[in-house]
Parts: sequence; structure tokens; C-alpha cells
Amino acid sequence: MRAVDIILKKRDGGRLGPEEISFFVDGVTAGTVPDYQSSALLMAILLRGMSDEETASLTGAMVDSGVRVDLSGISGPKVDKHSTGGVGDKTSLVVAPIAAACGVIVPMTSGRGLGHTGGTLDKLESIPGFRVNLSLDEMKAALARTGCAMIGQTAELAPADKKLYALRDVSGTIESIPLITASILSKKVAEGIDGLVLDVKTGRGAFMKTEADSRTLAESLVSIGKRSGVRTEAVITSMDAPLGCAVGNALEVIESLEVLKGRGPAELVDLSVELSARMLLLGGIAADRPDAERRVRHAIASGGALARFQSIVESQGGDPRVVDHYGRLPTASGQHPVPAARSGYVTGLDADLIGRASVALGAGRDRLDDAVDPAVGITVVAGIGHRVSGGDPVLTLHYRTEARLDAALPLARSAIHVGDEPPRTRPLILASIK
Amino acid sequence: MRAVDIILKKRDGGRLGPEEISFFVDGVTAGTVPDYQSSALLMAILLRGMSDEETASLTGAMVDSGVRVDLSGISGPKVDKHSTGGVGDKTSLVVAPIAAACGVIVPMTSGRGLGHTGGTLDKLESIPGFRVNLSLDEMKAALARTGCAMIGQTAELAPADKKLYALRDVSGTIESIPLITASILSKKVAEGIDGLVLDVKTGRGAFMKTEADSRTLAESLVSIGKRSGVRTEAVITSMDAPLGCAVGNALEVIESLEVLKGRGPAELVDLSVELSARMLLLGGIAADRPDAERRVRHAIASGGALARFQSIVESQGGDPRVVDHYGRLPTASGQHPVPAARSGYVTGLDADLIGRASVALGAGRDRLDDAVDPAVGITVVAGIGHRVSGGDPVLTLHYRTEARLDAALPLARSAIHVGDEPPRTRPLILASIK
Repeated sequence: MRAVDIILKKRDGGRLGPEEISFFVDGVTAGTVPDYQSSALLMAILLRGMSDEETASLTGAMVDSGVRVDLSGISGPKVDKHSTGGVGDKTSLVVAPIAAACGVIVPMTSGRGLGHTGGTLDKLESIPGFRVNLSLDEMKAALARTGCAMIGQTAELAPADKKLYALRDVSGTIESIPLITASILSKKVAEGIDGLVLDVKTGRGAFMKTEADSRTLAESLVSIGKRSGVRTEAVITSMDAPLGCAVGNALEVIESLEVLKGRGPAELVDLSVELSARMLLLGGIAADRPDAERRVRHAIASGGALARFQSIVESQGGDPRVVDHYGRLPTASGQHPVPAARSGYVTGLDADLIGRASVALGAGRDRLDDAVDPAVGITVVAGIGHRVSGGDPVLTLHYRTEARLDAALPLARSAIHVGDEPPRTRPLILASIK
Repeated sequence: MRAVDIILKKRDGGRLGPEEISFFVDGVTAGTVPDYQSSALLMAILLRGMSDEETASLTGAMVDSGVRVDLSGISGPKVDKHSTGGVGDKTSLVVAPIAAACGVIVPMTSGRGLGHTGGTLDKLESIPGFRVNLSLDEMKAALARTGCAMIGQTAELAPADKKLYALRDVSGTIESIPLITASILSKKVAEGIDGLVLDVKTGRGAFMKTEADSRTLAESLVSIGKRSGVRTEAVITSMDAPLGCAVGNALEVIESLEVLKGRGPAELVDLSVELSARMLLLGGIAADRPDAERRVRHAIASGGALARFQSIVESQGGDPRVVDHYGRLPTASGQHPVPAARSGYVTGLDADLIGRASVALGAGRDRLDDAVDPAVGITVVAGIGHRVSGGDPVLTLHYRTEARLDAALPLARSAIHVGDEPPRTRPLILASIK
């Protein structure tokens, strides 16, 4: 078999067989297929597309490029949740302890923030001592102890994805539904999970800007997830404004703890309950949807989920006292209000611009090797629909240096939209796909 | 400017500006654009296409990657001829001395045989001592001496093409009209020519199998050639059967000499006259087409073209006595007839299969670093339309070893088609494009 023949076949619109896809992925992993052939094939895939059979083969081959974690020694259903990334989306920190408290085993691998979106690993690392780089053995031990492990992608899980993702980033081949699907699912399938709930974001602050594109991605993910032997569901949720009121790593940990304490903004609570309930149902923990929701709300109300969060923190080397003492988290000394320019209703808080403002403050990164400041970020004082007078604060910037504040302010200001009429916003949860 | 943004623009169907194309080609030449970005862009160009403006910019940037030869010190119009490649196509060896004898300066860069097609350089090198690897200074000196230089692609001419062609070969991006156009024309424009006659082959033995594809390529070449400041014309000629009666390097030199001596197969003579006359017209040597044809036929009849060929051979270090003594050319000791399987008319001599048989005998190469045997090849004994009885020889294989003969025989046999009715073949010259 020759790589160039596989390229020619896809270039001319043909369908690749499982052997051809494995030959390519194995060659990428071993380094025997050179990058210039890989990038040509990736471009041909992006422009010609892939059938579900091909995407499933690609996903499987990428899983097989590394270890498929064997969690059979740990009893209980293994279910993960994955979001395609947004601004202020801290639901992973909420749903993982809730699901674990309800009896689900949650082996969760997450990513770091990049561009305007945040990353679960950065948020967790704002907790002093928290280690995300567990080995697979440490991950299993953590799962056995607390029912949950929250870790970064290890070199053992889907190494082909790591290579291909780096190549896609520089060869203009990110925006392909089959390639995105295989990238997301290969890492998840490798975790050894039985079920997966996907939160596909749509809107200004999401990777997919339109609901149609988000639906296409969600349908692909659900279809290929099922073909890969994982019970998979997706919800499509709007990401026009930040989720909740906090953007930035330590600030989002605090807001997550508030949700686990039964407080926290309604939308964030609602989405967390939705995702957790689906995890319970996929895991076979609940009899039906009302039962699942009842169990989830009980885990919050009883303090069980909060205690589970504390156990997870402790299990991964973090300071468990942060749960009760937010002052143990990094705090930015400077706080700067961003006022409404005029009187009216807050009609929009542009998630993309708020994400960029947060990166400008130091909470995120433009490049993967940038350092992140755990303390800085943005809080929403007057959310969508609030009535404000000109000069009233809408956002607060939590900053470390004046230079970064100056860089963030124009972005934050232009993120705020005030109008004469209360806004008609779309619901947070737009659709679900099973 | 970033290479990835150029890739994204072309991927999404945009048109690249001259600066973007220069950035890419300069980066390829300097090695600052990595191959994995080049191959992704090449695939995007193949699948998305290029406008004439873009193709002209690409051609220009590839010319500018090296030297544009300055032939202003040599008086006379500079006109070249280029064929897209076929089997038995030795017209370059015929038209170059004819045009030179008529007063055209012919700076001709050619290629080597690859796959089933032959290459002018291999044919010339079958003449003992003939040097094709002249430096640009030696080329100019040869042009001043004899009005003609027949050389290989030097490192100075369009080096970006050499890199991109190698990459296209392994990344499945050969078959793109804009990329083929820029590749052919960049080398020709760099020669410093005023005019160019293109022979675009079509049919079984050609790179382009259909007349429609050949016309598309011819129109692209003519349009971009003109945009590049070169008076350009193309003829589309059929390449279903070998051109003339000889396939193989020394065998084709002999047939070329026969044409220059006023003998040689009619089709080969006709095409040589057609191409030479066009060169004279483009060079402004002839008043009109009848005048051009008269001058060309006179150059043959007077022996002037033959004498010019001899001068060219001598000028480039070859043994000029081959012109009168074919025995000084390499000769294969073995000759093996390939008979007609039945009685009837020769209705087809598949150029592709005869080309492959010739390669099997050692006359060509499957890979660029294969050695070529100058002596071996195939001669046509009974051409298209000839009446044969079963067992009559149709082809003769000129071979060096039995093993190679055994490899070539099945290909040669299956190339011969005999039918009950005389064939209705299409004309050799199918169309011309100005």
C-alpha cells in the first residue's frame, strides 16, 4: 500500500477502506508517512468529506494508535462529558463531582484554554497543588478512590491525534467535521468509557458559529460515538454570552463551588443539571429522566457533590480547604469596572470579545506555550436582560498589571451591548441529539 | 503574511493575490515554507482551481525563483517548442535544427523519459559524447554558434518548479491544469524566449487521455504564456499510436535523421513541418503560413537542416559522424518480431502499451534514477491501416537480454489490434489554439 494512492483516492472523491485508513494513521504514528503526505490527505478529506464508515474507521485507528484504558477492574458505569469549548464554561468542574456522587465513574480527560476559550485543566490548576498530569495508573487509582479523575491528555491516549492535530493547525485543515469528530472521540473512546454526553456549543463564542454547523457536528459525534461502542448523546447549547458570571480560572472554580453549594447563576445550574442527568441515564444509574434529575438535585442539596469535589481535589494533590476558603485561591489585587455607555437593557455580552479580553488579562493563551495567570479574569455584574443606567458597571475586570488592563479594556467595552428594549435571547439548551 | 492564511483562503475557494503567491513560491524556494504546508496548498489548488490571473502569478513567481536567461546579446527571434510527452515523439530533434537553419534561435530545455513516455535528453544522449548538461554560459555560446542549444533543466531555471514538482509527485497533486501550466511555462519563460509552440498530446499514450482535457490544458498554456509575455500557440495532436515507426533512444535519433534527409514516415514529417512552420511564424521569419512551410521544406530538401543538426551535435560534444554512420549509435544485438495474431488490418497500436514495452526493454525508466539503455526499443513494421496475414510481423523488439525481452513481449503483443475492416483513425493534428 502506498500513501500517495490513498491521497489520490480521497482527492478524487473515493471512499477509503479501514485498511487504508489504518495504514495512514499507523504511518503517522510511526513517522513513516511524511507530514507532506499527511497534510495533502487532510486537505483532501476536508474538501471531499468522509462517510460515517470512514470517520468511524479513522476514530478507531486513532484509538488504536495508543492505549485503550481498561477500567473493567473498577465497578460502575464509566461516563464522561465533553464540551466543544466556550467562554465561562465550567460545567466539567460541576458535573464530574455530581455524577461521581451519584455512582458514575468519571474518567475525564480535558484540554487547556486556547484562543478565546478556557480550558478545564487551567481552571483545576488554579487550585494550589492540583495535579492534572496523572499517569494512567494514578488515574485508575484516583477513579477507584473518588469515582472521578480529571486529567490532561497523556502520551498514551490516541497519540496519532496529537500529531495530526498539530499538523491540522498549520496546514489549514482544522475545520472538517470528520476530522474534528475523530479527534474528539478518539481521546474519549480511549478512556475506556461506556457513555458520553457531548455539549456542542454554538454562537459568537463557540468554534461553530451557526446552529446548522453545530447540529452537523453533534450528529456526526453521536453517530460515530455509537459506532465506536460508546452510548453517546449530545446537547446543542448557545454560547453567545459567557456561561454564568465568571470568566477566568480561579474565578470559575469559585463559581463552580457556588453551584455545588446550591447557589450560582440559574443558566449554569440548569445546564449542569441537564448534563449530569444525562450522564446518570447513560450510565444506567437512574430509572428515567425525572429520577435522574431528582438524584442530581439531591446530590447538590445534600452536599454530597460538594464533598465529592473536595475528595477529588485532595485525591489529585490539591488543597481541599479551597472549598470553604476561597481566599486560598489566587486573587488579583486590581478590580476595574466596565460601565454601560448608556441607559437601557443589557442586550448582549459578546462571548468572543469577553473571552479575548480575558486572554488579554492573562487568563488564557494565544499560543500553547504561553503562561496563564490563574487569578485574573472577568465577572459579569449586570447580565443579559438587566436594566442599567449609563455608567453602571456591567463587567468587572480582575487584573494584575495596568498594561494588561489597558489591553483588555477596549475588548471588554466593545463586548457590551445596551438597547432600549429587553432582548429576546434564544434558550441556552437548543436541541438534543441521541 | 502567514502560509496558513494563504492555505485557508484557497481552501475556501478564494483567489490568491500576486503577493500571496510570491510569498508561497519564495518560501518554497528558500525552504521557509515547510513541505507540509506546500502540499496542503497544492491539494487545495488542485481541488479549488486557479483563475488565469492566479496561474500567471504562479508562473511568474516560479520564473523569478531563478534566473531569467538574457538572450538579448544574440540576434534573432528566440522560439522554442514543447511537447507534453508521448511515445515515439522525436519532433524536438527534427524541428530544432530546421528552425535554427531558417534563422530562429532555439534555446530548448527538455526532460528525461518517465513512465511510458520518452524524453529528448535520453534520445540525445544516445549520440556518443553528446552533453545535455550545459551551463547557462555554455548554452549561450552554443546558441551563438549554431542557433540552437538542447539542454536539461539547470538548477538556475525555475528552481521552485523542481521542488514543487517533486512534492506534487508524492502528494497526489500532479493532475491540476494550473499547476501543470505553471510548471511547463515557468521553465520555458525562464529561457528568455519570445515565442513558444506547444504540442499538447491527447489519447491513449498521452498524459491527457481526452481531447476535452487536452484542449483545456492547451487553452490554459496559451493564455498564461501570452500573459507571461511570450507569443504562444498550441496544437492538439493525437497520441493513440506511437508517432512515427521508432520508439527507443538511438532508434528515434535514426528516424529523426531520416526525416531531416527527406525520408521518414509521413505523419512524423507532417507534424515536424507543422511545428517548424509555426516557430518561424512566431519568430517573424516568414511572411505567412505558405512562406513558412516553403522555408521549412527547403531547409530539409537543401540539406541545411541536416547540416545544422550535425553542427548542434558537434557543438555539444557529440560525435557528428552519426549523421552519416548510424552504426556509430548504440545498437541492440537481439531483434525479435511480434507477429499479428490473425489476418486483417492493423487497427490499433496502443501507444501506452508500446511505451511500457519499451520501458520493459530498458529504453525508459519507472523511476527518475533508473538507468536507460540507449540501444533498445521497438520499431513498427506494419503501421495502422496495414493489411497483415496472421503471423506477419507487426513490431520488432530490439533487445539486450532475454529477461527484458520476456517482460516486454506480453505488453507488445497486447498493444497490437487487428480487425476485419480498415480502421477509421482521427487525424494527427486535431486542433490549434492561438
